[in-house]
Amino acid sequence: MKLTVLGSSSALPTSERYPSAHVLNAHERLYLIDCGEGTQMQLRRNRIRFGKINHIFISHLHGDHVFGIYGLLSSLSLMNRAASLNIYAPANYEYILHSHLKDFDIKLSYEINFIPLAGKDPALILDDRHITVSCFPLVHRVPSFGFLFREKQADRNIRKDAIEKYGIPGLRIPSIKKGADFVTADGSVIPNSELTLEAPEPLSYAYCSDTAFSDLVPGFVKGVTLLYHEATFESSLMSLARITGHSTASEAAGIAKLAGAGKLIIGHFSSRYKSVTQLVEEARLIFPDTYPAEDGQSYNIDEIRKAVKE
Amino acid sequence: MKLTVLGSSSALPTSERYPSAHVLNAHERLYLIDCGEGTQMQLRRNRIRFGKINHIFISHLHGDHVFGIYGLLSSLSLMNRAASLNIYAPANYEYILHSHLKDFDIKLSYEINFIPLAGKDPALILDDRHITVSCFPLVHRVPSFGFLFREKQADRNIRKDAIEKYGIPGLRIPSIKKGADFVTADGSVIPNSELTLEAPEPLSYAYCSDTAFSDLVPGFVKGVTLLYHEATFESSLMSLARITGHSTASEAAGIAKLAGAGKLIIGHFSSRYKSVTQLVEEARLIFPDTYPAEDGQSYNIDEIRKAVKE
Repeated sequence: MKLTVLGSSSALPTSERYPSAHVLNAHERLYLIDCGEGTQMQLRRNRIRFGKINHIFISHLHGDHVFGIYGLLSSLSLMNRAASLNIYAPANYEYILHSHLKDFDIKLSYEINFIPLAGKDPALILDDRHITVSCFPLVHRVPSFGFLFREKQADRNIRKDAIEKYGIPGLRIPSIKKGADFVTADGSVIPNSELTLEAPEPLSYAYCSDTAFSDLVPGFVKGVTLLYHEATFESSLMSLARITGHSTASEAAGIAKLAGAGKLIIGHFSSRYKSVTQLVEEARLIFPDTYPAEDGQSYNIDEIRKAVKE
Repeated sequence: MKLTVLGSSSALPTSERYPSAHVLNAHERLYLIDCGEGTQMQLRRNRIRFGKINHIFISHLHGDHVFGIYGLLSSLSLMNRAASLNIYAPANYEYILHSHLKDFDIKLSYEINFIPLAGKDPALILDDRHITVSCFPLVHRVPSFGFLFREKQADRNIRKDAIEKYGIPGLRIPSIKKGADFVTADGSVIPNSELTLEAPEPLSYAYCSDTAFSDLVPGFVKGVTLLYHEATFESSLMSLARITGHSTASEAAGIAKLAGAGKLIIGHFSSRYKSVTQLVEEARLIFPDTYPAEDGQSYNIDEIRKAVKE
């Protein structure tokens, strides 16, 4: 699993930071999370083949998280995409999206499946071969949703030396990988623990933006390997954070700590910060393993798990 | 007058070329022409103070000329713009624009004056202190308009030596600059030609995109100092140009030649061209003073006039 940050600004982009967009590569499938203006250019710049995106998740209906979608959808159509595309967004976006495409005379070469986000409980919204995706409510000026991407538990790894030693036939291997014991020709039972090694622990990634501090979020993202949480302001601007429905760096770190996250990335920085060092330092007082999101930077989530284990 | 190209791609942007947007600086006032996705980032990257933009001209309602406007309008509002902003666009965009801003809960800090473009005749759409702007019809799949920016004829320049020689009082200077003779205290008439020098010829810039070849355009932009004309394809793809309502490089050059333009910039290049050299070479066979648009490049229109005169 690899995360690439395409945009890390808040509503006002700067020359170094584009509006919000992340792309998660899980087992060579791409999942786009938010789609701020310029997402398609950032995908190109980072040589990410956006034809491989089959799912787009929109957290909430503020322009800095959405205004890149029209250009991206048009471009996919100009590239003659055939496969249908799944868009997960607050329920009222379905009408807005289709009417805006129609306003611009855009007839897509592919179908859109719209999956509405609504409600106050976490919900499973995608279950594919390798991962599940759930959404959960955040706290913002408009309905806003976080997303949790979780790898499925892989089968146990079978030991090659055990296959040879006991002459295990190929047909039996799938069940042994799922935990079955092996019975040899002479009737002796070889316990699964002698045949297999534990599969790696599933990785997970959670995206929480935009949101004010919510004490429900740690429960939603418990034990997540990598947490992205917005940190628009430093603590001295907490009252501004309250008014605008955003979080401070300390609050983001508090969520990471309460959730027992492996690592925290903060982003969605207010354009007032020319350098975000002070935000990172503030967060590290509470959660040391905090890093600032930077446009174009990638994070190997597998390495985070290893580092946390060590 | 200085033109800066912010985007020179056609519908599919590349990593080097953003979608269409030009900004014209005329006497330190900024005029934005088309507003493709990423325009606000390109303005920042080129250090153009976009708070100084008071007029936005939209040629037609295809996304690669418009999708940057929502983010730009939002950003201007976040920057607490107070001055009203004039938007010139095909008439049906007024409803689309306002409803899309409303969909995204965007309440602007300033007023928008919408000036609808319609009809089949050239029309004066702006007349300010230094320039006039006219629109004229192009030929595309949807209603599309070109724009002609023309400096006003400046007053004649009064000669400082003449002021001293004849003791011309300050009160008389404005009328002399407009062509009046001067009558001295003893009644002798000094003809204006002895008192003033000719003002520089007014500069002009025309933007023609998107459009198929139209034999009306040379008449609309007769004698323009700098002409931008789209050249999406090379001549070998003329049939594709016909179907899609675009021009070839030769056709763009033909328009420049027929119009007696000072210089031609071609752009809106199909993403199939990794290098646009062949398009420029094709155009130069017909109109030698042809150059390719490049994102971030500026063109001093005053220098073009001088070069043409020499």
